Amino acid sequence: MSRTAIHDLADGMTLAQPFQAADKQLRVNRQGGKYILLKLSDRSGTIVGMMWNADETTFDTFDRGDYIHCTGRTQVHNGSLQVILTEIQRMDPAEVDQSDFDRFDANQADNNFTRLRELLATISQPALHALAQSYLNDDSFVQSFRQAAAAVSNHHAYPGGLLEHTVNMMELVRLISPRYAKVDTDLLLMGAFLHDLGKIDELRASGEISYTDRGQLVGHIVIGVQRLGEKIAETEASTGQKFSTGLRHQLEHLIVSHHGVLEYGSPKIPVTLEAVALHHIDNLDAKLASYSSIIDSDIAADGNWTNYTPSIGRKLWKGDS
Amino acid sequence: MSRTAIHDLADGMTLAQPFQAADKQLRVNRQGGKYILLKLSDRSGTIVGMMWNADETTFDTFDRGDYIHCTGRTQVHNGSLQVILTEIQRMDPAEVDQSDFDRFDANQADNNFTRLRELLATISQPALHALAQSYLNDDSFVQSFRQAAAAVSNHHAYPGGLLEHTVNMMELVRLISPRYAKVDTDLLLMGAFLHDLGKIDELRASGEISYTDRGQLVGHIVIGVQRLGEKIAETEASTGQKFSTGLRHQLEHLIVSHHGVLEYGSPKIPVTLEAVALHHIDNLDAKLASYSSIIDSDIAADGNWTNYTPSIGRKLWKGDS
Amino acid sequence: MSRTAIHDLADGMTLAQPFQAADKQLRVNRQGGKYILLKLSDRSGTIVGMMWNADETTFDTFDRGDYIHCTGRTQVHNGSLQVILTEIQRMDPAEVDQSDFDRFDANQADNNFTRLRELLATISQPALHALAQSYLNDDSFVQSFRQAAAAVSNHHAYPGGLLEHTVNMMELVRLISPRYAKVDTDLLLMGAFLHDLGKIDELRASGEISYTDRGQLVGHIVIGVQRLGEKIAETEASTGQKFSTGLRHQLEHLIVSHHGVLEYGSPKIPVTLEAVALHHIDNLDAKLASYSSIIDSDIAADGNWTNYTPSIGRKLWKGDS
Amino acid sequence: MSRTAIHDLADGMTLAQPFQAADKQLRVNRQGGKYILLKLSDRSGTIVGMMWNADETTFDTFDRGDYIHCTGRTQVHNGSLQVILTEIQRMDPAEVDQSDFDRFDANQADNNFTRLRELLATISQPALHALAQSYLNDDSFVQSFRQAAAAVSNHHAYPGGLLEHTVNMMELVRLISPRYAKVDTDLLLMGAFLHDLGKIDELRASGEISYTDRGQLVGHIVIGVQRLGEKIAETEASTGQKFSTGLRHQLEHLIVSHHGVLEYGSPKIPVTLEAVALHHIDNLDAKLASYSSIIDSDIAADGNWTNYTPSIGRKLWKGDS
Amino acid sequence: MSRTAIHDLADGMTLAQPFQAADKQLRVNRQGGKYILLKLSDRSGTIVGMMWNADETTFDTFDRGDYIHCTGRTQVHNGSLQVILTEIQRMDPAEVDQSDFDRFDANQADNNFTRLRELLATISQPALHALAQSYLNDDSFVQSFRQAAAAVSNHHAYPGGLLEHTVNMMELVRLISPRYAKVDTDLLLMGAFLHDLGKIDELRASGEISYTDRGQLVGHIVIGVQRLGEKIAETEASTGQKFSTGLRHQLEHLIVSHHGVLEYGSPKIPVTLEAVALHHIDNLDAKLASYSSIIDSDIAADGNWTNYTPSIGRKLWKGDS
Amino acid sequence: MSRTAIHDLADGMTLAQPFQAADKQLRVNRQGGKYILLKLSDRSGTIVGMMWNADETTFDTFDRGDYIHCTGRTQVHNGSLQVILTEIQRMDPAEVDQSDFDRFDANQADNNFTRLRELLATISQPALHALAQSYLNDDSFVQSFRQAAAAVSNHHAYPGGLLEHTVNMMELVRLISPRYAKVDTDLLLMGAFLHDLGKIDELRASGEISYTDRGQLVGHIVIGVQRLGEKIAETEASTGQKFSTGLRHQLEHLIVSHHGVLEYGSPKIPVTLEAVALHHIDNLDAKLASYSSIIDSDIAADGNWTNYTPSIGRKLWKGDS
Repeated sequence: MSRTAIHDLADGMTLAQPFQAADKQLRVNRQGGKYILLKLSDRSGTIVGMMWNADETTFDTFDRGDYIHCTGRTQVHNGSLQVILTEIQRMDPAEVDQSDFDRFDANQADNNFTRLRELLATISQPALHALAQSYLNDDSFVQSFRQAAAAVSNHHAYPGGLLEHTVNMMELVRLISPRYAKVDTDLLLMGAFLHDLGKIDELRASGEISYTDRGQLVGHIVIGVQRLGEKIAETEASTGQKFSTGLRHQLEHLIVSHHGVLEYGSPKIPVTLEAVALHHIDNLDAKLASYSSIIDSDIAADGNWTNYTPSIGRKLWKGDS
Repeated sequence: MSRTAIHDLADGMTLAQPFQAADKQLRVNRQGGKYILLKLSDRSGTIVGMMWNADETTFDTFDRGDYIHCTGRTQVHNGSLQVILTEIQRMDPAEVDQSDFDRFDANQADNNFTRLRELLATISQPALHALAQSYLNDDSFVQSFRQAAAAVSNHHAYPGGLLEHTVNMMELVRLISPRYAKVDTDLLLMGAFLHDLGKIDELRASGEISYTDRGQLVGHIVIGVQRLGEKIAETEASTGQKFSTGLRHQLEHLIVSHHGVLEYGSPKIPVTLEAVALHHIDNLDAKLASYSSIIDSDIAADGNWTNYTPSIGRKLWKGDS
Repeated sequence: MSRTAIHDLADGMTLAQPFQAADKQLRVNRQGGKYILLKLSDRSGTIVGMMWNADETTFDTFDRGDYIHCTGRTQVHNGSLQVILTEIQRMDPAEVDQSDFDRFDANQADNNFTRLRELLATISQPALHALAQSYLNDDSFVQSFRQAAAAVSNHHAYPGGLLEHTVNMMELVRLISPRYAKVDTDLLLMGAFLHDLGKIDELRASGEISYTDRGQLVGHIVIGVQRLGEKIAETEASTGQKFSTGLRHQLEHLIVSHHGVLEYGSPKIPVTLEAVALHHIDNLDAKLASYSSIIDSDIAADGNWTNYTPSIGRKLWKGDS
Repeated sequence: MSRTAIHDLADGMTLAQPFQAADKQLRVNRQGGKYILLKLSDRSGTIVGMMWNADETTFDTFDRGDYIHCTGRTQVHNGSLQVILTEIQRMDPAEVDQSDFDRFDANQADNNFTRLRELLATISQPALHALAQSYLNDDSFVQSFRQAAAAVSNHHAYPGGLLEHTVNMMELVRLISPRYAKVDTDLLLMGAFLHDLGKIDELRASGEISYTDRGQLVGHIVIGVQRLGEKIAETEASTGQKFSTGLRHQLEHLIVSHHGVLEYGSPKIPVTLEAVALHHIDNLDAKLASYSSIIDSDIAADGNWTNYTPSIGRKLWKGDS
Repeated sequence: MSRTAIHDLADGMTLAQPFQAADKQLRVNRQGGKYILLKLSDRSGTIVGMMWNADETTFDTFDRGDYIHCTGRTQVHNGSLQVILTEIQRMDPAEVDQSDFDRFDANQADNNFTRLRELLATISQPALHALAQSYLNDDSFVQSFRQAAAAVSNHHAYPGGLLEHTVNMMELVRLISPRYAKVDTDLLLMGAFLHDLGKIDELRASGEISYTDRGQLVGHIVIGVQRLGEKIAETEASTGQKFSTGLRHQLEHLIVSHHGVLEYGSPKIPVTLEAVALHHIDNLDAKLASYSSIIDSDIAADGNWTNYTPSIGRKLWKGDS
Repeated sequence: MSRTAIHDLADGMTLAQPFQAADKQLRVNRQGGKYILLKLSDRSGTIVGMMWNADETTFDTFDRGDYIHCTGRTQVHNGSLQVILTEIQRMDPAEVDQSDFDRFDANQADNNFTRLRELLATISQPALHALAQSYLNDDSFVQSFRQAAAAVSNHHAYPGGLLEHTVNMMELVRLISPRYAKVDTDLLLMGAFLHDLGKIDELRASGEISYTDRGQLVGHIVIGVQRLGEKIAETEASTGQKFSTGLRHQLEHLIVSHHGVLEYGSPKIPVTLEAVALHHIDNLDAKLASYSSIIDSDIAADGNWTNYTPSIGRKLWKGDS
């Protein structure tokens, strides 16, 4: 029987299908009755589930993270859709279709990674070329990079999102950079590749995306510089060549300054043309990606405008309906 | 005899060649002697000229704006190059090579305008196509647009600079826009064309670039909207078709919001994807153009850095010397 | 039987009287029961209404905007007053006293409009006088202006509020302007008249006050300049006289700069004495009007202070009780 | 022989008339020669004077503050007018016409003070009335108040300027306040009277206006509150009535909050309607006064605009010439 | 039977013990039933109490502020702990152990006050010494100071907190000041003592800490200066010596500028070394105290981080668990 | 013959003594005559020197950095003291007393370093203790650290200043930290030691203090983290123990966040108590040091105030003269 993705649920639908139990709580209402409050998830999103008059008997049959077969009906409460459950059955992972739950799109990641290799291969400056290979030859890095998200919320906030954003920016670099005579395309391309790699350690991409301790204490900009230091050391070891100090500082500057202003967490503002370009290209791709996704996921029923979105301080135009 | 452009003058050169007298003053020194202070210009820039022990006899032989044949010698004073003049002779305009003095590059403008026509021709939406033609069919507009500057100082601050910046942005739009599925390329291309047209009336491009009264009182953003209103009326008259109100508001929004934030003079922030894209593409081209020109014209002799430039709040890296 | 205005309702009152159904929703509670959630309005304000155990049978008998006869009882819930309804009957508009529901006060508007004519009549500068007449002779403009609100919330946020605020400011101009020798009273009076006229198209005054698409995309400042352009063209046509370009730019500047700083949406800051005066007089009237209305409508029961009001970042002193 | 005021001097004039020596220095030029550098003043302004080849013989014949008879000629140096002196003679104060040098206009102060008494007399609230009398009965206060300046530069920056600004504001209060029903005119009038009185101790009005130590360490806002405390004590003593604590706090609040926002040095923002009104009326009068005076004293020769004035961040429109 | 402090309550506990009724409301639920909503307090904190199906019969048996014996059970609702009450009995104050309810720790205050006397006794400058004694000899001041809080929320927000913070800062002054040669330790010590004394009148420390009218209208900085003026007058009377005007301005400056910047409510920024030191020492102690208390009272169950705290714009690290 | 230090020079002194030629230029005056412009330095400061009517004959006899014996006379020009030279003789370095020219005070550095060792020895946490030893055992680090400056201008801007500032802060930590129970003194002491070590590579301390390329591109915060990484690796190698990852992140956070807010270049704000304390202690010492030095070096002759200092936005009180 075909499953309806959470993203496609509507008011008043009857359901009998698997979900993942992202979170669960047993609560007591004002009259003293108990009920179960769930966060149900699949790859398309999450939804609140409520099971009234339920107690430990049901609550203890499954754990957070388990797949559960849910019977119930959707309804709108305070403007949000939720599922009122009448039955919950724990399922064996083997019983569910993993593709319904995995937010990571392996095909997309494969395509992006192939394109990443091609783009890095266009770098002709030998030291940068060798450095790029050190990253690509590091299986552990490749594995983490493919899965990493670019943000907790905001733009490209899903497993594989960092790779998607990185490749997007590198494509823009290849289109734009040759139009500006004084900009070094190889350097800018490498900057686009490196600029957010620290996010691999800043964010936990498995389960719900969240900050690691290291991410909160040190931040992806400094982590990115640390990782670059390790890879330069590996490159020197593998090539037997000292990596140019000046070039290293140029790369570090690209990472360090890419937020453009101190107020957004860059400890240095861009002072090279490549750093200026990188900041603006990053901004362009990040803004178009996040604004597009706000429009996509907007649930305001009527009219041409999204709901007011505090993080961007505005409503967006969705187009004449 | 070949003329040395102001841009190429160096300390200690002997000169006997034409300049334009951009400004002139007769001054008295502390000991009561008189001298002439000049601002000399050619297409490559301006320089201060001083003629000691000179009085009305010489001063009254030429007017501001005249071409003058100057004999003298360059020297550095307080860190700036100037010319110490020993003789000044007014010249007939017919005697000078106009190409030495005209900051407007007609060839470049022709090429840019040809490219502008091609880019506007790619617009397939009929109403936008017709509107673009109204602009192109207006000879007075075309004449002004070709000569207009994009700024008094800062980026593209020369006659023809507005056209250069506009075409540049339209090129970027054609490269970037197709990569974002929800962005309407025709609309964005039209936005890039329209966004700064109000500068034609905001700035005086003949002589030294400066603000008009209208420019200071009303500003290019509102002027651009006014001009658009006139052209839409012309388009309606020529096509016999009512221009869509919704589409008009979209275009007005692109002009009105292209500075991105209120603090920079946009009375509305971008709320359509095209307006968001336009703002960031404008920023990217303007910043790369102005930073490149700061590096080009920097005179700091030693080392890898430009002088500190207050308008951008930083020194720029010029590259390993 | 006399009707109690919403503004005068108190806890524990029994009601049987007409309201307008400003909004309606059918909801399902946690136990699966249905209930109706209403926004009831009259000219004095709005209040939430709840009808428990009600379903489509009742819900479908009336539409949003209909008048309904409501039986029920008021109660305080989470600190707000609401009405618990036991019966709802749709009414014919002829059955209700329109004066109970019309937030627009026609008498007040008549008085304000008479005063507006008198104030505009004091303008002696011929071109400004003729321009003012063009506005007054435009019946469609007059009709819209009388009904327009000055804001969605904040100051003068009711139908007729724009006229009220405009006349108020013009009165202040007549009192204050003659005290400053260099200020042109005619020009300043005209500026006070024109400064917010763009709000006629920015806001929808019928039903709940809200932004139009044009209002959100273009904004009342630019719309006001566009409207002025149309009226100047009409004036030129009716008088057969070219309107002075310099004077036109002065008027446009008054509209364009009246928010005083870029951060508040003025694309130009005030640079004429009249524009400086206009900004401060606008501020004075708007602030005193909105702060007075916050004090009037404050419901904090105890003491000398209003509740903290986030939009103004403070509590206000209500006076020693 | 009639004297030319400094304000009316022009380039190339021959002079033989008295000035006040506001400042004097004996300097050595690069060739080792000595010269005298003077700051000459009269009631219309100040100007630099230079006497070449002058030494102690001349320098020691007069002191700072003395009147001196100067023979010489005006000239423009680096864009500023100065006087090149050939002879200096110390004068007896009895020889000069004091009205040429006294920046304080006693007639104007008399008129303003008469009007001040009338305006304070309109206060009907008994305690405020009595308090006002305490100020008026204090001869030392009256004497200081008449002479005080409202600022070092900026608005009303001349002896008598504080009184002028205070009376101006009180006039505005009488015109504006009755239009706002909830505003207490007596209280607001008293606020306008009190708001800047601390400037009497903050600034030294004799000689060049400058900050006192107390002014720099404590500031006029806190000083104004201290002075009010003293006057309330005197009022209580003279009337034998306890001054209402609540009313006292209202008055203190008017002084304390009149700059409107913390960033401008008010330790509290306005929270009473009178304080809100006071802040905006102060702003209106101060801005119109200072902008008018910038236009009056502007020396830009050509065109419709003043020079760019950093303190207000703009050029001002001087009117179509 | 031993009482469990509110701070130590956990989910699912059965209770039968006294609380203070800090607040009480009788409410009606959606079904029309009545219930009592209470704010229960003891010295360790406050908690919400709910008594279902209770009406005036119970509600009227006690007043706000009374001690009540409560029977019931704790539960978590929406993430907060509350008490569901089944029985409420008003108690006589004599029946409760006052030490369970008194948030003021008299022993701690005694110790702090003793230390305050010792620290003030180290001041050797005679005028400052005498001034300090005037404060200490004022029993009414001493009484109020011991009980005062330093804030409504934020740091040292409890009765006795102002004394605690003041003594802490004076201890830091004695440790730090001698390391900076140009800093006058006596003056700085006196500044630390005086800087927040205005809070005695700004805040009501009895019952729930809240702002007084004077506090909101005038603020503790100005009040502190007023209090200082009174004490200087007393000191002059008792010693028969005029207090140095310069020294008085130094002390006033320390109070007036201690918030460091205008934006935080100081009408003057620090311009003496002692004022600079005072501001930074205040900041250091206040931040460490408030951040420590946020960590102490954080209830986030899992992991190393507190919840996000809006007032400080961050999560805090609680340490590796 | 005893030498007068630059700091002690006054107007009108005759000189014949050595200086170091920090900079030299040969210039041409308006009349075409040549002169030499020098920047003379010794350990107490720098001063401008002018030799009139001097040409290549003298100019070429010495190089920048050479010691020269100067004969001449001091004079005030435009408010600054300068030396008019009549004779210049190049000297052999052996002829001068090095202690007159060396801005680095070796004794002071020795004392500071001894104290640094003592303070680091108080750290009892084994891993931190071992890490501190790694720094102390690195001779190249020790050598650089002793000579490093803490700033180009501002606080501790001299060779040895970084060590001075570091030891000062560590002393404050030992005094203050034990007063706050939740603060880990070992960690905070280590943070004070590490926080600015990146300045060793950010600034060039030899000759005039200036930024290195690495300093401008990467900045001392990121460099400090890089250096820490190297030292942790050395410590692991020497102890054979893995350094705790959590502890490493704590140390990195102390470096990364010590500027306190993003706007001042910290890519992360302080989120641990130690980081909060470190930021405030750094601020306290830096401000008191720089303000004290502004007062010391102020040259305003008259009165109680320094000149207005733009970098701190204020005049400072120098004390009653």
